[in-house]
Amino acid sequence: MSTKQKRFFLSEDELPRQWYNIQADMVNKPMPPLHPQTKKPLTPEDLYPIFCEECSRQELNMTDAWIDIPEEVREMYKYYRSTPLVRAYGLEKALGTPAHIYFKNESVSPIGSHKLNSALAQAYYAKKEGVTNVTTETGAGQWGAALSYAAKVFGLEAAVYQVKISYEQKPYRRSIMQTFGAQVTPSPSMSTRAGKDILTKTPNCQGSLGTAISEAVELARTTPNCKYVLGSVLSHVTLHQTIIGLEAEKQMEMAGEYPDIVIGCFGGGSNFGGICFPFMRHTIKEGRKTRYIAAEPASCPKLTKGVFQYDFGDEAGYTPLLPMYTLGHNFMPANIHAGGLRYHGAGVIVSQLLKDGLMEAVDIKQLETFEAGLLFAKSEGIIPAPESCHAIAAAVREAKACIETGEEKVILFNLSGHGLIDMSAYDQYLSGNLQNYEVPDELIENNVSQLEQIIK
Amino acid sequence: MSTKQKRFFLSEDELPRQWYNIQADMVNKPMPPLHPQTKKPLTPEDLYPIFCEECSRQELNMTDAWIDIPEEVREMYKYYRSTPLVRAYGLEKALGTPAHIYFKNESVSPIGSHKLNSALAQAYYAKKEGVTNVTTETGAGQWGAALSYAAKVFGLEAAVYQVKISYEQKPYRRSIMQTFGAQVTPSPSMSTRAGKDILTKTPNCQGSLGTAISEAVELARTTPNCKYVLGSVLSHVTLHQTIIGLEAEKQMEMAGEYPDIVIGCFGGGSNFGGICFPFMRHTIKEGRKTRYIAAEPASCPKLTKGVFQYDFGDEAGYTPLLPMYTLGHNFMPANIHAGGLRYHGAGVIVSQLLKDGLMEAVDIKQLETFEAGLLFAKSEGIIPAPESCHAIAAAVREAKACIETGEEKVILFNLSGHGLIDMSAYDQYLSGNLQNYEVPDELIENNVSQLEQIIK
Repeated sequence: MSTKQKRFFLSEDELPRQWYNIQADMVNKPMPPLHPQTKKPLTPEDLYPIFCEECSRQELNMTDAWIDIPEEVREMYKYYRSTPLVRAYGLEKALGTPAHIYFKNESVSPIGSHKLNSALAQAYYAKKEGVTNVTTETGAGQWGAALSYAAKVFGLEAAVYQVKISYEQKPYRRSIMQTFGAQVTPSPSMSTRAGKDILTKTPNCQGSLGTAISEAVELARTTPNCKYVLGSVLSHVTLHQTIIGLEAEKQMEMAGEYPDIVIGCFGGGSNFGGICFPFMRHTIKEGRKTRYIAAEPASCPKLTKGVFQYDFGDEAGYTPLLPMYTLGHNFMPANIHAGGLRYHGAGVIVSQLLKDGLMEAVDIKQLETFEAGLLFAKSEGIIPAPESCHAIAAAVREAKACIETGEEKVILFNLSGHGLIDMSAYDQYLSGNLQNYEVPDELIENNVSQLEQIIK
Repeated sequence: MSTKQKRFFLSEDELPRQWYNIQADMVNKPMPPLHPQTKKPLTPEDLYPIFCEECSRQELNMTDAWIDIPEEVREMYKYYRSTPLVRAYGLEKALGTPAHIYFKNESVSPIGSHKLNSALAQAYYAKKEGVTNVTTETGAGQWGAALSYAAKVFGLEAAVYQVKISYEQKPYRRSIMQTFGAQVTPSPSMSTRAGKDILTKTPNCQGSLGTAISEAVELARTTPNCKYVLGSVLSHVTLHQTIIGLEAEKQMEMAGEYPDIVIGCFGGGSNFGGICFPFMRHTIKEGRKTRYIAAEPASCPKLTKGVFQYDFGDEAGYTPLLPMYTLGHNFMPANIHAGGLRYHGAGVIVSQLLKDGLMEAVDIKQLETFEAGLLFAKSEGIIPAPESCHAIAAAVREAKACIETGEEKVILFNLSGHGLIDMSAYDQYLSGNLQNYEVPDELIENNVSQLEQIIK
């Protein structure tokens, strides 16, 4: 039995004081988001009616590689950060791999996932700018839970639209949000025009992140002193999540290693970018050879099967047009348990990086992800969120490849959250009632073909 | 906003290498457990048929104050220990108290509570002694989940009897146990004589820890190479839990403070003893003035309203007779959500300490505990287990008292686990459907009067 160190922590003094904005270092910058009406490149001011002003500026900041973390946010980070970097000796042994597997354990955040990193920042900026109400969407509920708590911390009211299928599959997450004092509405709802429209078009619609975003944006636009905040996709959210990778970089140094492969699961891109971008800056600036792998569900394969195209971020078409890999903004993903990955598009930064070959993407079927998650649970003791199971499955694939080659590759993945609220999914898997979902190519082609008309 | 340190950790090297056995230092030792048939004081050998041998010896060890933690167990501890000691600035502010409140956050253990500390030790000893199967009871499921994972770690089969009311109230905990590969049976069941007997006597019985213990003990007695392990009450379990207080002692030193009051919720006594005993040794040996408060539910008030008496540890009367504060071994507690506290008796060490005035006990009604838990969730971001809400409620009482007196008392409590699997309880509380349960005095008197006959 190894007596080597298993977990690596930073002291509160060592916590990063700045987030890393990869946009400043990218050779090919992301193409600009376009105004949904004028189709002209967006300015931060165009975003002010919906987003906090500081977040709007961060979103389009192409020049400053380092953005100060406000002291008030950093103080709140200290309640749960640094999160541990863990050497997964148990998983390595279970696989019999020569690879060195590390994971950054974001599941120890009080609300159970990495989402709090950006929720605290966004709630802080909202409060500072005099906002009283925030509204958002949530899939599995990880983001909604984080935002609900962050809103409570900074004294804001929070209204959350939860994707209906998740609202029903994961009632405990709704309770968590309500415990923190938030209002939770299943989406699509009859409380917004966007919700009514889709329910008219598709009765009994189970919802999607795209629709929930439309509802939240609509609420923000029609409510005084209310801003919309969101949990992934946008560049400022990913910026806040770079705290993960920045800590991991220091912690890997403590472990005396540097990753050959960095892996994150992929919904909109914020946890992936959060763990990867701080390492990727060494690839961009110093040519360091590291592979970055985004693990997405086979049922929602925008990176591996979508097209790179301007598209809306939401179902109703309220948001700016974003240049991204997309399955089409009206794509309705299958009801997989990884609710946080059921989103049609990828953030603009990741989309550009993938286009430029700086990163890779793999799509994984649901059963393989749960198989990996179960192996991880049994060997590391932590039950992973269905979303995180995708990152684990990708790490397992790479670790198995090392058995073939005998290479002692260093693999780092982000354990974005725990799955304790997702036990019904494990129940289904264990009882053999879980299934794979794949998207027929013609459905993607058909969906994507409609995008051409958005920008003529 | 304070920029003082919030969380205190020990490095892996600083983790304690020994558990603390308070029995060696007690002036008045606990009275001896008696053999259920012969009524003679037990020897370790009497326990071997049911318990692991090493645990049996630890149970009755009155001489060695320090017991080595096996290296294999300590290696597993490193996956989640030290747990953080946290200064609860948020709670202090919410209360407006001058008190300094600290909590030891055992909820960050992979399975969500302190229970893993003893589960790993017991599973290790079982494996080392050639045992292949372990069986146990569980209330809310925290212990069952811990034991299921620990059994998996050391390659043992696990069979868990879960109290039926908890099995139904908290289905996710059952799923967690099954995810780790354990067999889970709701208790009372028809699979044991003890289960059949009580179901015949009380059809639709919702179960209790006492009954579940009977079932597990019976299974251990009738299955080759199978040992019974348990999650609280007994002295060797509390011994393993002293890792909590030993770490906390070092961490309080890092914070530059020493507790005036140490608080734990109280079911059988292991988490209470775990946090308190390492501090209490300074009270016993050096006369250091510290208050130790056990917080029990008003619906199961063995410490505040029970009698000190020899009684069985289980409902069917299979276990040795233990000298303890008890409500009677056939006491059937109300269906409160703090399933882990629904036990009729207190461990022998705590019972003796309470009798000798070395500690205090308070009983708290369910609504007050959830009120405190909600305040804690909103101010510290962590949703506490219903059991832990009792410790929080007691800490809140003491912190409020400091507002009156202006004293800056240092209060330390053990956050034994998180409540993410207990959200249905919070739902009920938030919707006003949760109620208080108190036990009529005559019920206790009647129940306890039957005990006289056990030892004639």
